[in-house]
Parts: sequence; C-alpha cells; structure tokens
Amino acid sequence: MWPIEPVAYVEAARQQARDDFWGQTLACIRLSEAYTAEALQGLDAFSHVEILFGFHRVDPAHIVTAARHPRNNPDWPAVGIFAQRGKNRPNRLGSTICQIQRLEGPCLWVAELDAIDGTPVFDIKPVLPAFLPRTPVQQPAWAETLMQAYWLPEEA
Amino acid sequence: MWPIEPVAYVEAARQQARDDFWGQTLACIRLSEAYTAEALQGLDAFSHVEILFGFHRVDPAHIVTAARHPRNNPDWPAVGIFAQRGKNRPNRLGSTICQIQRLEGPCLWVAELDAIDGTPVFDIKPVLPAFLPRTPVQQPAWAETLMQAYWLPEEA
Repeated sequence: MWPIEPVAYVEAARQQARDDFWGQTLACIRLSEAYTAEALQGLDAFSHVEILFGFHRVDPAHIVTAARHPRNNPDWPAVGIFAQRGKNRPNRLGSTICQIQRLEGPCLWVAELDAIDGTPVFDIKPVLPAFLPRTPVQQPAWAETLMQAYWLPEEA
Repeated sequence: MWPIEPVAYVEAARQQARDDFWGQTLACIRLSEAYTAEALQGLDAFSHVEILFGFHRVDPAHIVTAARHPRNNPDWPAVGIFAQRGKNRPNRLGSTICQIQRLEGPCLWVAELDAIDGTPVFDIKPVLPAFLPRTPVQQPAWAETLMQAYWLPEEA
C-alpha cells in the first residue's frame, strides 16, 4: 500500500458531481496546514497546472475493474476502465490540466478544474510544454462525442 | 489517509533514476494480478496514455515541502515544490503522457515513459484532446532550459 495524504483541498461552487458544463468554472485550491505559500512560489510563471485529486464521493463498492460502457451509455462501446476517464476507477484518482488564474497566499486560483467542493488534492504540478504530447493525438469517435458538452459554460 | 494500491508495474531497461535522455525508451506496463486484459480493452484506439505512478525509490526523508532550486541547480531560481516536477515531492506521485505502442494481453507497451523498472503504477488514463490545454501554454525560461535533453535518445 502507498499511503497518500491531501496536500490541499478544492473550494468550488459545485457541490455535486456532474458530467458536463465545467467551462469557465473557477476554484481555489487551498494548501493544507502542513504547507505554506512557499510551496507554490513561482507557479504563476506558468500558464497551466496539472492537478491530481481524489474522487472522494465515489463509494469504493462501485469501482469498476474490468470493462463497461462509458457513462453507462450503451450507444458507446464497452471499453476497459483504463481506456476511459470515468471516476469509478481503481484508486479513484483524477488528473486535470487547468488554467492558472493567480496565487493568493496559500490559495491557487484555477479555471476549469472538474472537481467538486471539498475534493482532496494529492499533487500540483506545473505544465511544461515538453511534457505534452509530442506526436499527433488520436482518439476513437465515442470519446469525441462524450466530450462535446464537457467544457461548455454552465447554463444560466 | 487515502490508501492506493498499484494497478500495474513498469518493466523497463533503465534500473536507476536519471535526469535526462528518456527519448525513444520503451516500457511494458504489466497489470497486477487483480486485473485482466479486459481493463485495457479499447485503449489502443487512442494514440497517447497518461500514466500516474510512484517514485518508489525516493526516501520519504528526502521529500521537499517548501521551495528549492530545480535539480538543486543554483543557476535556476528557487521555486516551490509545486512549481516544479522533481521527484522528491509530497506523495511521490509522477504523471507522464506516453505514446501507446500496442496491447499484448495484460501488458501495455508505451514509448517515452520516464519511469524506471519496477515502478508501481496507480492509474492508466487515455489522453483525450479535450483534456489537453485549450489556451496557449507558457513557462518560465528555467523550465525550458531544464528540459533540453530530457527527450533526447540515450547516447550509445
């Protein structure tokens, strides 16, 4: 077993998990008491940050370990849990690249983090262009369809 | 505490951590016995995969929680541990986007995974273009310099 502890928590408006409409959302990632603002120093020289977090509301009993239809939608092929990004996955880890807005003491403000209020954060990493794909990126048709409304702004 | 368990292990030629020359390296990510090939089914319709792993050789006593010079190089500014991607970090988690080569039963072959032989893997996620940065990516000069030899092939 590899014990991990939250280094921060998400403060956000959204209280419940939702599949879509994460566009333009704002969140504060507030460092845990074991850390000071020094741990974030210099991060605002980057435009983007990668957040590793836990899907803390997922009941471990609902974790999928083999294959299923993404979002349980039978229109899409059943694929392995490691061929989709759904939250009911082994270790319940999420990973999202967000836009850095600003640093404010122990708080890192980001745009478009798809995590709800109270989410534990396990790591914060700057996005270096050299760590992004260096060859053309391809995906199956179902994945493109699934993401169509993901980054749309929430409807009024 | 958030207990996580390896879902796979890395099989690779490199036995010791090294800062640079990860270009063109190949690795097999072999699922743990709790999983079957079904968990990877369909992943080969994607070109890239994100691997979350543990820096298992890092002594927890050497974890940095505040600021330091990246690679301990005084030519670069001291920045917070969350403003760099060095391995001596809280929770010792790594995250790298690799190129998918092929599936072979319980084995996922990837190119350019910067992890040594025996590394525990905690998650495997397909790379969807919609999860990559959607606005221009910027980094400070030190980060660009630091990465210059990272993806070069290993010298003969």
